[in-house]
Amino acid sequence: MVEHFRRIAVLGVGLIGGSIAAAARSRALGERVVGFAPGRDGEEALALGLVDELAADPGAAVDGADLVVLAAPVPVVRGLFAAVAHRVGAETLLTDAASTKRSTIAAAREALGAAFPRFVPAHPIAGSERHGPAAARPDLFGGCTVLLCPQDETDADAYRRVAAFWEAIGARAVDMPADDHDRLFAEVSHWPHAAVFALCAGIAEGPRAEDALRFAGAGLRDTTRIGASSPGLWADIVLDNREAVLECAAAFERELRATLDAIERRDRAALVECFDAASRWRRRLR
Amino acid sequence: MVEHFRRIAVLGVGLIGGSIAAAARSRALGERVVGFAPGRDGEEALALGLVDELAADPGAAVDGADLVVLAAPVPVVRGLFAAVAHRVGAETLLTDAASTKRSTIAAAREALGAAFPRFVPAHPIAGSERHGPAAARPDLFGGCTVLLCPQDETDADAYRRVAAFWEAIGARAVDMPADDHDRLFAEVSHWPHAAVFALCAGIAEGPRAEDALRFAGAGLRDTTRIGASSPGLWADIVLDNREAVLECAAAFERELRATLDAIERRDRAALVECFDAASRWRRRLR
Repeated sequence: MVEHFRRIAVLGVGLIGGSIAAAARSRALGERVVGFAPGRDGEEALALGLVDELAADPGAAVDGADLVVLAAPVPVVRGLFAAVAHRVGAETLLTDAASTKRSTIAAAREALGAAFPRFVPAHPIAGSERHGPAAARPDLFGGCTVLLCPQDETDADAYRRVAAFWEAIGARAVDMPADDHDRLFAEVSHWPHAAVFALCAGIAEGPRAEDALRFAGAGLRDTTRIGASSPGLWADIVLDNREAVLECAAAFERELRATLDAIERRDRAALVECFDAASRWRRRLR
Repeated sequence: MVEHFRRIAVLGVGLIGGSIAAAARSRALGERVVGFAPGRDGEEALALGLVDELAADPGAAVDGADLVVLAAPVPVVRGLFAAVAHRVGAETLLTDAASTKRSTIAAAREALGAAFPRFVPAHPIAGSERHGPAAARPDLFGGCTVLLCPQDETDADAYRRVAAFWEAIGARAVDMPADDHDRLFAEVSHWPHAAVFALCAGIAEGPRAEDALRFAGAGLRDTTRIGASSPGLWADIVLDNREAVLECAAAFERELRATLDAIERRDRAALVECFDAASRWRRRLR
């Protein structure tokens, strides 16, 4: 049974927030879907029909909302909790879409006070190298997983209703402790972004940057696709999850060193062994 | 005007050789397409209809062929030139599909003698993380580029006819000096494979290998796709192009060091600068 909200406030209407708003509108999950975003994103989201209306500031968006979705970049979302806390109603549910959960939850706990039990931390595993309202689409979450990180204080009814909202826009809800989430996403997303940026930069800053653009095959295109992502957005995510990312970097550097040693020594058996552990794992990812 | 061959010999009928054979058959470019491969690949290619017949050994395949395509892995192809040289006819054309060109050309020059001017070194920029005859398909080269590395000795008529063969199976032929080819492909293919294997191994050998398989998003799937490639095949390619690969690795390590320094120092501006050079370059790759 899908719940219908009177007013859904979506703070941040880029790729993720815009897609949440568009999905909620297309499934009529709210009578009004109200967006807020600084700069041109808000007007663009309104023009694209992602939201029903725009609010002048985050507080005005949240006023009277029975569901608030915070979908701004990581450092912005932390500040938004404090900006909207005094406008959150006594029954209002909250959720977010931030890529890191420990710092987001800590900021929410500090800012939201009595409303914190109605905040259900979430991370939808969806996205692309594109960003902004123009990249949003109502089916972005179809078939994806949304990780939920309920806290000891989290209200059971709020948890159930927010999980149902995420499932109503197409995602499959799975619980995960916030610590586990942040370590896992350092490994499968944050560190790979940093590594791919470095791989691209090595080519971009070298003498064959133009020829590489001309002759790259499908392999390089796929490998480097996330290298087109927003530098500022990913710098914030990586720094927010700094310790876990540095642990992944250390594990990578050990493998890199073994690989380069084998290449330097022309040790084919050792090189095949390096590649084989990787290949056996990757063949299981379907 | 597409030339029709009486007998096309394809040595190695995996992903690349099998696709060349299948493309030649489907376009009726040869009266007979004869394959050779050691082990089960040959029988599999015959069963899949990639070739008209199988030869018992490379020499038997080449006997009477007016076009010979060497499409075996890099170290095998070098040996094949010597194995077939005395069976190559006085008019026979030769081409190959090896991922590295300097060593292949050197081996051909040494082994082929009077036939060397009729050998047109080639590298079709096509492939996938899959390998073997079952991965072959007649349209693999549609829209792709084939790099040709003609030598001072290369016969102009042989060059023209071999280029026309590659174009007849769907590729666009572009000339490139072999040195430039090998340096460029270290950068856009060989080194990225080694780096992606190391990225996968860092995850595979860590405590979250299973969760990573379960929760990886589209980004990690694309980034690591080439990590499912054949370890032995890529170890041989990387070692064959060792110096150029190590140069790319050094450039990568400089970028990696700058990235990790910025993360360790929590220097957002420096981190954005690292990511930005990468992102600006990658956005131009379409």
